[in-house]
Order: sequence, then C-alpha cells, then structure tokens
Amino acid sequence: MSTTAANPTASHPGSLTSIHDISLDGITRLLALTNRLVAEPHRERVKHLDGRKVALLFYESSTRTRTSFELAAKSLGAMTTLVSDKSSSIEKGESLHDTGVTLRALGAECIILRSNYSGAPEVLARSTGLPVLNAGDGMHEHPSQALLDLRTMLVRLGLSQQLTPTTMAGKTVVITGDIRHSRVARSNAILLPKLGARVIFCGPPELCPKEALDLSHGVEIERDFEKALQQADVAMMLRIQRERLAGLDIDSAEYIAGYQLNEQRLRAHAPKALVMHPGPMVRGLEIDSAAADGPQSAIEEQVAHGLAVRMALLHRALLGETNA
Amino acid sequence: MSTTAANPTASHPGSLTSIHDISLDGITRLLALTNRLVAEPHRERVKHLDGRKVALLFYESSTRTRTSFELAAKSLGAMTTLVSDKSSSIEKGESLHDTGVTLRALGAECIILRSNYSGAPEVLARSTGLPVLNAGDGMHEHPSQALLDLRTMLVRLGLSQQLTPTTMAGKTVVITGDIRHSRVARSNAILLPKLGARVIFCGPPELCPKEALDLSHGVEIERDFEKALQQADVAMMLRIQRERLAGLDIDSAEYIAGYQLNEQRLRAHAPKALVMHPGPMVRGLEIDSAAADGPQSAIEEQVAHGLAVRMALLHRALLGETNA
Amino acid sequence: MSTTAANPTASHPGSLTSIHDISLDGITRLLALTNRLVAEPHRERVKHLDGRKVALLFYESSTRTRTSFELAAKSLGAMTTLVSDKSSSIEKGESLHDTGVTLRALGAECIILRSNYSGAPEVLARSTGLPVLNAGDGMHEHPSQALLDLRTMLVRLGLSQQLTPTTMAGKTVVITGDIRHSRVARSNAILLPKLGARVIFCGPPELCPKEALDLSHGVEIERDFEKALQQADVAMMLRIQRERLAGLDIDSAEYIAGYQLNEQRLRAHAPKALVMHPGPMVRGLEIDSAAADGPQSAIEEQVAHGLAVRMALLHRALLGETNA
Repeated sequence: MSTTAANPTASHPGSLTSIHDISLDGITRLLALTNRLVAEPHRERVKHLDGRKVALLFYESSTRTRTSFELAAKSLGAMTTLVSDKSSSIEKGESLHDTGVTLRALGAECIILRSNYSGAPEVLARSTGLPVLNAGDGMHEHPSQALLDLRTMLVRLGLSQQLTPTTMAGKTVVITGDIRHSRVARSNAILLPKLGARVIFCGPPELCPKEALDLSHGVEIERDFEKALQQADVAMMLRIQRERLAGLDIDSAEYIAGYQLNEQRLRAHAPKALVMHPGPMVRGLEIDSAAADGPQSAIEEQVAHGLAVRMALLHRALLGETNA
Repeated sequence: MSTTAANPTASHPGSLTSIHDISLDGITRLLALTNRLVAEPHRERVKHLDGRKVALLFYESSTRTRTSFELAAKSLGAMTTLVSDKSSSIEKGESLHDTGVTLRALGAECIILRSNYSGAPEVLARSTGLPVLNAGDGMHEHPSQALLDLRTMLVRLGLSQQLTPTTMAGKTVVITGDIRHSRVARSNAILLPKLGARVIFCGPPELCPKEALDLSHGVEIERDFEKALQQADVAMMLRIQRERLAGLDIDSAEYIAGYQLNEQRLRAHAPKALVMHPGPMVRGLEIDSAAADGPQSAIEEQVAHGLAVRMALLHRALLGETNA
Repeated sequence: MSTTAANPTASHPGSLTSIHDISLDGITRLLALTNRLVAEPHRERVKHLDGRKVALLFYESSTRTRTSFELAAKSLGAMTTLVSDKSSSIEKGESLHDTGVTLRALGAECIILRSNYSGAPEVLARSTGLPVLNAGDGMHEHPSQALLDLRTMLVRLGLSQQLTPTTMAGKTVVITGDIRHSRVARSNAILLPKLGARVIFCGPPELCPKEALDLSHGVEIERDFEKALQQADVAMMLRIQRERLAGLDIDSAEYIAGYQLNEQRLRAHAPKALVMHPGPMVRGLEIDSAAADGPQSAIEEQVAHGLAVRMALLHRALLGETNA
C-alpha cells in the first residue's frame, strides 16, 4: 500500500458518493448515456465492461439495490464479486480501508458500497483511489436512488432530460414518512431544488423534526398530509418501520390515520399525482395496495429505472460518460 | 405495478409450481429436451439463455437444489442473481408479491423459489406473470425433485421415456421415513401413480399418519419396513431430523431398528431394489453407508439428473419445450 | 456413489491440500505458469476454463481468500458456485463426503475448501477424487498463502524463480504473533527451509510455545522481537485476536510493547526488511499504520500475488501445469 494510493487528495471522478458529486450537466450526460445503454442489444451492451471487475461490498442487508447494481454490472459484461457482512473480514476487525485496498489488489476497478456509517463511501474512495458508488450510507445519502427517482419523474411528467435549473419549475414533490432517518429523502431534497422543484417534507414531528433536518436547500415542512397532497405533482412515500414507531410511542393506527397514502386520500386530494416509493413497502402501513398498484403508481418503474441508471453509473465509473 | 400484471388470471405456462402442472405428454417432451441439452457441447448449450436473467429466491437454506438450479441456469448462459433470506428485504417486512415484482422490474424472466410457505410459488407466479419454478414450498411440493427422481428410475430400471399410464406398471416404489413433512414424498406420490407405479409409504404412525396423508392417488401404507422392502423395485429413503424424532418422543435407536436401510436388510429383503435418497442424508440414521454407497444406490446419479432436468425446466420456462 | 469413486487410493495430482504436496520443481513450474497467465490478455485468459465448473465450499467466513479464488476462477472463464456455511446442508447434518460427492455430481471439476477441521481437504480429495485446493483448514495449513508469500518474497528480494534448495540461502524470515494457531505460519515454515531460508518464530510463550510447535524443519524460536528483527530480511506479522489475548491473560498493552511492528522498531532494527501480513490486519495491535503502509510493506502486493498464484493453481488442477 503506497502512501500515494492510500491518501489520494481527491476521490476518483467516476465516484458517486453524494448527489453533490454530480452537476446538472453531469446528470444530463448520465441520462443520455442511460438512454443509449438501454437501447443497445444485449450482445453489444455486454462488451462495455468485458473482463472488468466490480466488487459489491454490502454491510447492510439489501435486495433491490444490491441486485440492481449486480445485474447492471453483469449486463455490461463485468465480473462481479459480492462481499457481505456475514462472510467478511469485518467480523475479524479489518478496517474499511484495508478491505478496500484488498479488493483493489484483487483487480476490482470499482466498488459499490452499502454501509451503516454515514460518510463511509467517501472514506473508501479516498483510501482506494477507485471509483466508489454509494449504495446507501447510514442516514446520509443514497444518490443512485435520487437519480433513478429523477429519471422516473422526468419520464412520467413528460419533462426534458436536458437538465436546467428550471426543468422542474412549478412541480412539487411531497416526501412523506420517516424523513429523519431517510437517506432517500436527503438525496432527493438536495437534488430536486437544483432543478427548480419545490420539495415538501411531511410527517409527524418525531419523524420529521424541523430542528434536525437540513432545510438549506429550500425544503419546506407541512404537517398536514392532505394539505401537502393537494399541492403534490409527486407523492413519494417512505417505508415506516413498526419498531421505530413503537420506540417513539407513536401508535400505528394514528400514523395510518394521519399519513397513510390510500385510495380515498389519493382520489380526494391528489387524483393526478405520481405515486412513488423507494421500497421495500410495508403495505397497510404507509401505503395501501390501491395506491401502490393503481395507475398513478410508478413504483415498479422506479426499479427498472434503477437498473438502467446504475448501468450508466458503472459505465461512467469505469469508462467515463462517453463512448457508449 | 399495473393491476393487469399483478392479478393475471393464470400463471405462466412455463411455470412448474406443482407436479400437477405438467401432463405425461409434457413430461415426455421435457425428458426429450433434457436428453438434447445434455448431449450438446458447452459452446452450443451456453447460447440458449445468453443474456437472459434468472433470479434465485431462497427463503430456506439449501445446497443441492440451489446450486443445481444455479449451475443449470449458468450452463445455458443465463445471468443469475441469488436473493437469500439472510440478506433480503424480507427482513424488512416486504411481501413476496413485492419482491417478485421487483425482480421482474430488474429484468428477471424466471424466478426459482424456495419457501417455507406451502403455495408460495403459485402466489408468486400469479403476482408476477413470470414462469416460477418451485424449488420446494413448505410441506407441499418439490416438483423438480419428482422429475429428477423419475428420470433416475426410468434410466436405471430401463424403462421408456415416452411416458404412458402404464410406463411403470408392475413397479413398486417404497418411500420410507418422515412422510408427513416431506414435499418430496408428496410430489412423487402424485406423479408415480399416473405412470402406473404402485407407491407404498412406510414409517411409524407419528411420521406416516394415515389420517393426515392424501392417499387419493392410490398410495398405500405399510408399517413393516421389511415387508415393504420385499415388494420394492425402488427404495426411496427420506432424511430424518433427530430433533423431530425427539419432539415426537421416538427413540433414535428404535427408529433405526425398525426403519434404517442397511446392508443386512437390503441383502435379505431387497437385493435388487434401486436405492434412492433426495439428500442430504443423515448416515447412520435412516441409511447406512453400505446402502448409500453400494452398487444398488442411485443417489449420486439423482444429483446429476437434477442438473439435467433443471436445465430443461429453465429452457421450457424461458423458451418453451422445443428448439433445443 | 460407486465405492471406487468414494475410496480412491490417492488424491488427484492437481490437488493442493498441503504444501507438502508440491515439490520445488512443481512450484517452479507453477510460478512459470503464473507468469504466463498474468501476462495474457483477458480475452485469451478467459478461454482456459471456459465451460468448466469450480465449487467454492467455505465453512468459515473469509473475504480475501474466497474472493481471490472466485475471481481467479472467473478470470480463467470458469463458472463458479459458492456454498457457504450459513446456507448449506451442513446445517442439516450432511457429511463433508456427501457434500463433495454432490458437488461432483453437479459437474464441479475442482473444489476450493475452507474448513475449521484440520485435514478436511485431504478427506474431501479422497472422497471425490477431484482436485481439491485447500483454502485454509483449521490450525493445519494454508498452502496457497505460502505460495503467494513466496512469490512476493522472490519478486521483492530479487531472487530467481527457478527454485533450488539454495534459492533463499542467507535469507531470514521472522514470523511473529500467534504462531500456535496459525496455519499460515505452519505452511510457510514447511516451505521456506526447503529453499534454504532461515525461519524464526517470535512471540510470547503462550502464543509461540516451544513444546507445541513442529520445529523439525529447522525453525528457530526467538522471544526477543527486536533481536529477531535485527536478523530479518522479511518480517511477517500475524493477526492477533483480542479475544485470544484475553483468554490467555495477556494484556494487550504488554503485547504491543513487546511485539508490535511499528515505525520506530522498523527504523531502529530492520530498516530494510520486507514487511508482510496475510491479512486481515488489526491495525494498532500487531502492526501500526506506518509499518503497514510504508515503502517496506508488501502487504497489498501479497493480495495481487494471491490472485495470480490461484489462477495458476486452478489451471494446474483442471488442465495440468503446461499449455497455458
């Protein structure tokens, strides 16, 4: 481990550790790359990363994000290896730095990291000098989720993919649920205002505490879910963990009464809003099946956009943004 | 998730959720397809599912079934992704429906499911509209096991693979052990009588309770293992879990005395019967090593037939039964 | 399972269950093969094991060894399948023999085994007749580690890769730490003296007990770490588990005072010695970051040599030593 490699001054330009890492122009190029990759036949697509190695380092359980990145890498022809908490050297006290350097020495050219520590992807990017893609870090960020959410909204709202600070002007995105602990909410709340969208956080004070949230990007708080819905072009719901409600002495039935997105509420207050959820959903708690599965829902499309955007992120990490 | 996709009227014709799903003609075609795939060189075989995605969704631990399906898919050139209990969204309360829809949105075209809930594959098949292959569901069915067992018997007993209701006429299959909890016994007991075989269940009343078993397919019960063996063309032994014996207050030594398939018994009562076991075996309990490893045993061949039959099942699921 | 296959008289010549299995000439050929494979472009390399199946059977958690073997196999074009403790039939009481025979029946042509039982790879090799590569067995051996350590030393010390009994004459390798429980120490201590190297074990009596170690290969013991370092061309440090120190009533601070490899000690006593560690490191205990990351360190290179040597071991196992 040379000191140079171990302490580079900046992370690799192909990294995505925070949604702050990528400019509107960068996202515009990424979305164009996504479109090109999606349009390619399998036989062409599989050549891009033929013989390249991608490591998936997952310290938290995950189905959709891990599977999505794994299939994106394999779709481009990369070799993948999965290191997950339960079978890893972490149990033996190895540092993230050393795990990263080991993966680099094994030939990994990009690391996808999910960690329960906020900031871990940045540490890993600096340790290894490799492009690191943040697949969720603690309560901090989930930037690839914000990008797939963006592609979903642009397509469903019929907006241009040539991004400018007014692309989403006049559009309101209401994010409802456990805002406090949500890296999805955080990454979306950083990105969407840059495009001119209005972002409203909604939830009871325990889950959406004004004093604990970063509202510097112009995000507003509205406690009344129905008032918020009336303004929504997009209603993005977040998963609620029953244990967390219990820990905060919030009654499930009361939460549902106040904040569940269901058929009646949707019909009465937001009959045209796009319904989104990063998954996994807890049906019957934050959302009911009519809302989740109805014509306003883009929830399954979000997953497909995730695969597409992650192919582009891997291409950007290993080959740059062009040459698709 | 469109309502159409979420609630299709029937599952995909390439599904195999129960051995009831496939007719004798269908199995005849499947066995012919198996033979063609086995005979192909690797370079040809790997083209069938090139670029296709297969998801393995395993909610119970499994070595042989999971590895068998995984290698079958890879042998045909498919991309695979494994979702197992311990790293999955299930921990977060996501429904099987939503996990399936997510895998579909990620491009999975077939899902292999092992679940401890009887009927889960049918639910998943209806949720996703995708072909679902049941890799074992609770105490219900294990249809790919019944098919590999069938191929093993046809080959070893020298029977025709052009199946008719009399293909196995005059042949007796004795299935011994924990019948009550065995999905292997159940799937075999549905299939074999359709081919004219006589099926005998054998075991003590606690493990083979007359009143709790479905004997509608003409299956008989014989408590005396040696009497059963004397009639057997095939002696199929089932794994015994020591904890289950303890829970039922059955003494291990007594079980062994009454029901273990061992060298002396085999020589005395069934010197020509084919010995089968779906694995994993508990040597020294339901079977001894002389029986497991001797010339009458087809146990290792069963595993090889499993790989072969599962290649054909994947081909049938994704490409149909022809064009191999 | 035929009796022939289950009880072969000797294990496959492509096995590596112990470093005793391979002669100096054999290692010379293996290192030459390693060089050829490393030099090949990906498109050529991937043809060697195209369509071949390699099973990874890991009964202990592992990041670097498992990932290294997995990527080595995939780099040569092999299909891999991973069976790990937590999802395996072992939970159901299946024997190692039966798991091996199952993997063979599924088409595996080589098994990589990590086990906490000393001697397990030899058992598996005899059970299956397949080439078995020992990826660490209990406190017994870790032969691929000894080979990658050797390649690291030969390259960094500028020694010939045409091995003879004097290749390392005049060189001293000091191995320090928990010698008693270290399979890495054991495999190195068998191999290095054959090349003429002097090997010194260093550590407190509890971790390096004269009466419990096999010193038949001419290995010496030196309790004073600084005296040992003064003689070292190579300082190989071993991981210390805090729980083990606690169990032996050794104070961490005392251990560090006596045996930590750190900047001051390195500068004062071994300013030119090569620093090695098999990983995972516990920084701040057996080694400090200045030593681990400084210019004398070959720790990251060891990992890269591991991938290279394991490609050659897989080639040797499946294709023999030539034809690369």
